[in-house]
Amino acid sequence: MSAGQGPEPGPPRTAVVTGSASGIGHATRQRLEADGWRVLGVDLHDAEVEADLSTADGRRSMVETLTDLSGGVLHAVVACAGVSGRTNPPELVVRLDHFGAVATIEGLRPMLAAADGGAAAVAVSSNSALTAPANAGGLTACLAGDEEAAVAVDWASGVEAYATAKRALVGWVRRRAVTPEWVGSDIRLNAVAPGLIVTPLNEADLDTILATPGYPRPSEVPGRPEEVAGLIAYLLSAEARYLVGSCVVIDGGTDAAIHPDLRV
Amino acid sequence: MSAGQGPEPGPPRTAVVTGSASGIGHATRQRLEADGWRVLGVDLHDAEVEADLSTADGRRSMVETLTDLSGGVLHAVVACAGVSGRTNPPELVVRLDHFGAVATIEGLRPMLAAADGGAAAVAVSSNSALTAPANAGGLTACLAGDEEAAVAVDWASGVEAYATAKRALVGWVRRRAVTPEWVGSDIRLNAVAPGLIVTPLNEADLDTILATPGYPRPSEVPGRPEEVAGLIAYLLSAEARYLVGSCVVIDGGTDAAIHPDLRV
Repeated sequence: MSAGQGPEPGPPRTAVVTGSASGIGHATRQRLEADGWRVLGVDLHDAEVEADLSTADGRRSMVETLTDLSGGVLHAVVACAGVSGRTNPPELVVRLDHFGAVATIEGLRPMLAAADGGAAAVAVSSNSALTAPANAGGLTACLAGDEEAAVAVDWASGVEAYATAKRALVGWVRRRAVTPEWVGSDIRLNAVAPGLIVTPLNEADLDTILATPGYPRPSEVPGRPEEVAGLIAYLLSAEARYLVGSCVVIDGGTDAAIHPDLRV
Repeated sequence: MSAGQGPEPGPPRTAVVTGSASGIGHATRQRLEADGWRVLGVDLHDAEVEADLSTADGRRSMVETLTDLSGGVLHAVVACAGVSGRTNPPELVVRLDHFGAVATIEGLRPMLAAADGGAAAVAVSSNSALTAPANAGGLTACLAGDEEAAVAVDWASGVEAYATAKRALVGWVRRRAVTPEWVGSDIRLNAVAPGLIVTPLNEADLDTILATPGYPRPSEVPGRPEEVAGLIAYLLSAEARYLVGSCVVIDGGTDAAIHPDLRV
């Protein structure tokens, strides 16, 4: 019926975490291991699977290696790998943060479908998906699955590409989660939307972020990667069975301050 | 820094749960007790505090009795009490589901502020807040805190009143959560939006609900009160510290199917 939750009797359940060498991915790996999961990490280095998910070759290599390492059965996938739009070109942001995440979740789906007792996946989006302006053409290209068209968009900045990639990721999650291939195959798919979290992705320009006008932070203490990992662990647990296609915002109140009304 | 999480060393932390005699409230009471909380239930009967939260007298009586029982300190409040719009008149729905919930959370806030180490509150809304049409005038009256004006609205039905009351409840949560009185006082306030959950509130007309056109249910198995209780327990836990003003949808994918895009 439900998704994996460790620790449980019997052999450990297996989770894949991309971006496992740092930040939210690293914290998620540690949390899941503490909960009794077997974790297969994916990153450019310092991981069981070393692959560049911004490229088609890297994505293919990841799926092949994980098939071998897992024996073809996975109970959870967490797509964390991503780069900041403030310090990276739009092309890399779009290729990794959107299409890399989609390729990870979609590419590993057959192994999730092979799990007894259901499985779960979580895509790590961002509250930028909700609070920052997206590029309409970029959003359309991402949702159409057209990577080259998305890369070719005349992006205003990496930040715009990031907000667009992350918004499209939530849109992809919600479109897919409700289909026969996902909820209908007992695989739950959800998203999380973290706000400001202190990670290597942003600590170099944290002062700039903290001084950004129009970015309310009702909780003055930024989030910690471990807090996002805790939410992800909950979403992967059996008791989260009825969350399907949800986007859970964990941002210290930024989105609530900007959008007091969810529907207007 | 953070909200209560049981079990912990030392004296048990105290949580108030309204609507504790049945449904989600009852499951939440049981879950929190299993986790080591001391729970003070509020309901029309079969509760530590017997009060009718649809009336000003009942709300006042609840606050007074809880002040005595708790010694003036609370670590968590969960506002579950509510009635269905399908089987109740709009006036009762508005008075209990919206203004009763607001009065509970607001009225108990001083006792939450008295807790060492922070506190948390959760309002139980509904995915109707997101998926069903609200009455504009009713929404305005609710958000203005004008109970009599809200009751006097020319409601189309109890169902419309329910969707409006629950949408306004999320709006109230998000407006309040980010203020000095809440997050600024180390009290986290969030909402949950359950979809179809099998409870006494709806089991009498479950067949009607299941046959409702335009109400997609990607997860064919309805939710259980225990699943919502699990989400509430997570939101009250210390590790959920960075969720502020969030509205977590737990509805088997209904909202995702209706609104694939969160922002358009």
